[in-house]
Amino acid sequence: MRLDSIFHTCDAPFAFAVSLHEWKVRIRCAKGDAQRVSVVHADRYADPGRETPIRLEQVLSTGLHDYYEGIIPTPTRRIRYSFLLENSQGERVWYGENGASVERKHTNVFHCPIITPSQVHNLPEWAASAVVYQIFPERFHNGDPMNDPEEALNWTDESCPAWDSFWGGDLQGVLEKLPYLQDLGITCVYLTPIFLSPTNHKYDTVDYYTIDPHFGDEALFRRLVEEAHRLGIRVMLDAVFNHSSDRFFAFQDVLKNGEASPYKDWFYIHEYPVVQEPVACYETFASNLPFMPRLNLEHPEVQQYMLQVTAYWMDQAQIDGWRLDVANEVPPSFWRMFRQLVKSKNPEALIIGEVMHDALPWLRGDQFDGTMNYPLRDVLLEFFARQTIGAAAFVEQISNLYIRGTDSSALAMLNLLDSHDTERFLTSCRKGGWGWQPGGEAENRLKLAVLFLMTYPGIPMIYYGAEIGMEGETDPGCRKPMVWETAGQNLPLRQYVQQLTGLRRERTELQAGSFTVWVADESQNQAGFIRRSGDGEIAVLLHNNPCEAELELQLPPSFQGRRIRDLLTGQTWEAAASIQLQLAPYSGYLFVAETPAGV
Amino acid sequence: MRLDSIFHTCDAPFAFAVSLHEWKVRIRCAKGDAQRVSVVHADRYADPGRETPIRLEQVLSTGLHDYYEGIIPTPTRRIRYSFLLENSQGERVWYGENGASVERKHTNVFHCPIITPSQVHNLPEWAASAVVYQIFPERFHNGDPMNDPEEALNWTDESCPAWDSFWGGDLQGVLEKLPYLQDLGITCVYLTPIFLSPTNHKYDTVDYYTIDPHFGDEALFRRLVEEAHRLGIRVMLDAVFNHSSDRFFAFQDVLKNGEASPYKDWFYIHEYPVVQEPVACYETFASNLPFMPRLNLEHPEVQQYMLQVTAYWMDQAQIDGWRLDVANEVPPSFWRMFRQLVKSKNPEALIIGEVMHDALPWLRGDQFDGTMNYPLRDVLLEFFARQTIGAAAFVEQISNLYIRGTDSSALAMLNLLDSHDTERFLTSCRKGGWGWQPGGEAENRLKLAVLFLMTYPGIPMIYYGAEIGMEGETDPGCRKPMVWETAGQNLPLRQYVQQLTGLRRERTELQAGSFTVWVADESQNQAGFIRRSGDGEIAVLLHNNPCEAELELQLPPSFQGRRIRDLLTGQTWEAAASIQLQLAPYSGYLFVAETPAGV
Repeated sequence: MRLDSIFHTCDAPFAFAVSLHEWKVRIRCAKGDAQRVSVVHADRYADPGRETPIRLEQVLSTGLHDYYEGIIPTPTRRIRYSFLLENSQGERVWYGENGASVERKHTNVFHCPIITPSQVHNLPEWAASAVVYQIFPERFHNGDPMNDPEEALNWTDESCPAWDSFWGGDLQGVLEKLPYLQDLGITCVYLTPIFLSPTNHKYDTVDYYTIDPHFGDEALFRRLVEEAHRLGIRVMLDAVFNHSSDRFFAFQDVLKNGEASPYKDWFYIHEYPVVQEPVACYETFASNLPFMPRLNLEHPEVQQYMLQVTAYWMDQAQIDGWRLDVANEVPPSFWRMFRQLVKSKNPEALIIGEVMHDALPWLRGDQFDGTMNYPLRDVLLEFFARQTIGAAAFVEQISNLYIRGTDSSALAMLNLLDSHDTERFLTSCRKGGWGWQPGGEAENRLKLAVLFLMTYPGIPMIYYGAEIGMEGETDPGCRKPMVWETAGQNLPLRQYVQQLTGLRRERTELQAGSFTVWVADESQNQAGFIRRSGDGEIAVLLHNNPCEAELELQLPPSFQGRRIRDLLTGQTWEAAASIQLQLAPYSGYLFVAETPAGV
Repeated sequence: MRLDSIFHTCDAPFAFAVSLHEWKVRIRCAKGDAQRVSVVHADRYADPGRETPIRLEQVLSTGLHDYYEGIIPTPTRRIRYSFLLENSQGERVWYGENGASVERKHTNVFHCPIITPSQVHNLPEWAASAVVYQIFPERFHNGDPMNDPEEALNWTDESCPAWDSFWGGDLQGVLEKLPYLQDLGITCVYLTPIFLSPTNHKYDTVDYYTIDPHFGDEALFRRLVEEAHRLGIRVMLDAVFNHSSDRFFAFQDVLKNGEASPYKDWFYIHEYPVVQEPVACYETFASNLPFMPRLNLEHPEVQQYMLQVTAYWMDQAQIDGWRLDVANEVPPSFWRMFRQLVKSKNPEALIIGEVMHDALPWLRGDQFDGTMNYPLRDVLLEFFARQTIGAAAFVEQISNLYIRGTDSSALAMLNLLDSHDTERFLTSCRKGGWGWQPGGEAENRLKLAVLFLMTYPGIPMIYYGAEIGMEGETDPGCRKPMVWETAGQNLPLRQYVQQLTGLRRERTELQAGSFTVWVADESQNQAGFIRRSGDGEIAVLLHNNPCEAELELQLPPSFQGRRIRDLLTGQTWEAAASIQLQLAPYSGYLFVAETPAGV
C-alpha cells in the first residue's frame, strides 16, 4: 500500500465531535489502495488490549484519494484510536500519530482527550432546511417613493447600473414583497447592508446604529422582521466590521485631530497628518479605497463597539443571523468573541462568513457556522455554465469541497450560483456556449444548476431575480432593479425554482442527509449522487448534456427491486435493478423508492 | 510525480506567520519525488500575472516524505500562492487549494487573507535560551523542619516513596538551593503544585489562594521568586484547573447541599444525592478518582474564578509562567481566555501545556506557547535508553516531531527525559540493556541523551536529581528525596550537565537555530543534525554505540575548508573536507567552524 498518501489528523475536518458521545473519524488513502479500513479504539484510560474495531465506510473518492469515515461511540468521551488498512493481497498497514507502518507498535495512537460541550458544533435547527434569498435592498422593490434619493432613476429605466446609480429600493419594498418570497418557498432573507451610508451598496457604514433613511427607519425594520417571522421567513443582516466609511464618526475624529484623536488606534494609520489623496496613508479595504478605512478589531474598544452593535440589532430587531463581510481579513480572535455573544443572545442565530477560498480555519466550531460557498460556485460555473469540465472532474471537485469541512459546516455552507459580487449565472450560461447558443439552452443549464443547488448539502441561496431569469454582468451589472412586471419575468423558470424549494423544504434527505457519489459518466456527461437521512434516500441524476439520450440506468443497490418515483415529474417505474430513461437535454431526476426495501 | 502524497494546507503547521510581513509555507511530497519545489506568490489583490517564484529549501525528510520550506515576504500582508514541483525528468506539477495537477488552472491558489498582529506567535524572549529545572517541592530540600508534616520521614531514609509518604521538602528548601541551581546553569524552575492540599503531590487543590503550610506561606513564596529573579532564574507554577480536591470549598458545598448548592454546575454531577463511594457519581480526573472532581471550565463562574487565581499569583508574586496540568482535557475556550489574561499581565510569561500526544490544536498561537514533549521522550527512550530503534528511525522520528509544529512552538516545546510522572531516564537506561550492563554504560546513554536534549530545538528540562544520577521507577519511585550529600551524588555527571547547560546558554544556534538532519548512519548508529542561526552553525554528532570506532567524517559543505572545533573537548582540526575521528563509546560532538567561510 502507498503509505505516503495515508492521512489523518485528530483535528477537523479529519476528526470532530458529532455529539457529546460520538467522534467521527475520516482517513484518506491513495485511490483504490485499501480494500478494508477499520478504526481500532478504546477509552483513553482503559488498559492496553481493550481496543474494539469498527469498520469504516468508503464515503467519497476524488481523483487521487479514497476517503473512509466512521463514528466512534464513546460513553466516557475520551478515546484513543488507530487505523488498520488492508488490501486485497492481505497487506496490513497500521496508522497512528507517528505515521504509517506494518508494525503496529511503531505507529502509536491518536487521542481525543475529551469531548466537551463547546466542541460539539450545533447548527441552528432551521439552518439545514433553509432556503435563503439574497436581497440588495436598493434594487429589490421601491415600496416608499417618498424616501428615494434625489438622483433615483425610474424603476423601469433599463440603463445598466453604474457604480453610483440609485433606484430607490427600500425596506418598505422588501416588506411588501414578503408574500412573494413566501410563495417562492424562501425561509430566510439575507439583506446586504442597510445602515447609514452614502453609497447604493452601503458597504461603507457611516453609522452602525441608524437604518439608512433612503431605506427606512428602525421601526420599519422591526416591522419587517416581525412580518417576516409571521410568514416563517428569517432575516439575516450583513455585518460590515472589517472597515467603515471614512464618514464614520471615529474616522472623522482622526481626520480632524490626527494623532491627538482618541480613535487613532481604531484604524491602522501609517503616518500623520492623515491624508486620503492620492494614496490613503492608512489601511483600507482591498487596495487603496480611501473611503473604506480598515478597522482595528484587535483593539478592545473597537471590539466592544462592534459587539454592542451586534447585540443592539439582535435585541432590538430579533434578527436571525449575520453574514460577515470580508470575514477572512478580520482577526479570528474577534470572531470568537462575536460567536460567543451571538449564540448567547440566540443559539438559533446563524453565522455565515464571507470567505471566498478554503475556509476550514474559520469552521472548526469556534467562529462561523458556514461560509459563502464561492469555491463551489467556481465548480458549478465550469460544469454547468461554461461546460469546461466534464462529469468526472465535476464529481471529484464537489467531493473535494464536501470533504474539506466537518459534517455540520458542510450543512451550513451558503451555496450560491451568483451574488451581488459576481456575474449572474444565467449570463455566464449564455456566454458559456461555443459561440451562439439556441434560446433555451442557457436557461436549461441554469435550471440544472438550480436543481443541483437544491439537492447538494448546504444551504441554497437565490440571488434576487435569478428565479425570474434576470441577467447581468459582474458588479455593477448584476445589480439591476428587480423586474416586477410579469411580462418581463420568466414565469416557467420561477415555477421550476418554486417546485425545487418545495422539495428542499419537504425532504429531510436533501436537508441533512449524507452525501455519496453515485454516477460520474464522462461520455454522457451525467453526474449523480445520493442523499441519505435515517431511512430516507434520494438519488439525484443530472444529465448535463444538450442532446437527448436513452439510458439503461443501473439503480443504487438500496433502490433495486422497489417501485421508483421521480419527485420532479411524478413518473414511476416498477421494481427492477435498472430502469429505462429517455433523457431530455439538460434534464434532472430526483429518485425515491416508494415501496419498502426487501419486500 | 506522486500527486496523491503532496500535501499543504494554509494553516499551521504547513503555513504560519513568522512576522507581520513574513509567511512561512511548508509542503510535503513523497520522498525523493521532487527535485525542485517553488512557491509562486503575489499580493492577493494584484492583477493576474504578477506572481513571483521563490525556490523552497528541502529542510527535512522522514521515512516517507520530503518537506520543503520557504518564507514569502509580504509588504501588504496579503498573499495568494501556489506551488510548482519539478522532478529530474522535467515533469512539472502545480499544487493549489484544489489539489495537484499538471495543469496550473485546475489547481487554484492558496490564500493568506491578511497577517494581523494576533496571528504572529511571539515567544517570551527568554524562552528559547531557557534551561528549566523541575522541582517536586516535597522532595527537593527541607529548608524549614518546623513546618514538616507530622508523619515526615527522615530525609536520608532510603525507603522507596509510597503514594502517601512525606519527607518535609518546602519552599525554604528551594530558596536555599537557588545558588545550586544557578551554578548548574538553570534559568527557570518549574514547581509542581504548591497550593493547599492534603497530598504530597498537591495535584488536588483545596485552596488556590493559599500556599500549603507544609511548604511555607505567601510571603516566603514571594521572597523565593524575588531571590530567584535576582539570580537570573525565572519561576513557573503548575495550574491545576482541570480538577480540584474534593475538599475545595465549592465541592464541599455540593457535597453538603446537593442540588441546592450554588456550585453544583461548577462540576459534572451525574445524579443526586452526590456519592463518592464506591463509584463517584460525578466526573473526576482520569477514571473514578473521587478526591479529584473535574471542574466545569465552560461555566462562566468557574472560568472567572480560575482567571482570578491566575491573575492573583501573577500580580502578587510576579511569576514568569504556568505549566498547565491535564491541559488537553480543559476546553480550549478557557485556555484562550487564559492566554489573553496571562499575556496581558506579562507578555514575557511562558505557557506550557501538559499534552502527552500531538498537540497541534493547542499550538496555533491562541492557546499555549509549547507543551511538555512526552512524544519526544518516547523516541529518546527507544533510541538512547532501550536502543530499540536505530539512527535512521531516530532521525525520522525526531524530524516528524519537529515538523508537527510551527517555528515558534518548536522552540517552546518543553523537552524532557523524565518527570514526576515517569520512570527516571537513568533507570530506563539501566534496564534497557540486553541483560546486564557494565557500570558506566547506562550513565553513558543518559549523557548522550542529555547532550541531545541540550542541542535539539525546544526548551530542555531537567527533572530534579537527574543531574546527579538519581534513579527511580515510575511514580512514586521517581519522587525520592533529592540527594544532597556529595558522597551520594554523581559529580562528574553533574559537571557534564553543567557544561552543556553552559553551551546551551551561550550559543544562539542551540537556542533559536533552525534544524536540519546531517547524519543518519544505521550501521554505526550515528545521528547528526545542524542548528543554524544567523551566521552561526553547530553540527551535532551522536555516536550512540557501546563500541569505539574510527570515522572519516565528511563535514557539512558549509564547514569544509575551515578550522573545526569541538565545543565539548576543545579539540580542533585543520581545514579539510573531512576529519578523522576516534570515537569513544557513546560519544558526542558539537562542531563549529572557527575560521570564516571561503577564506
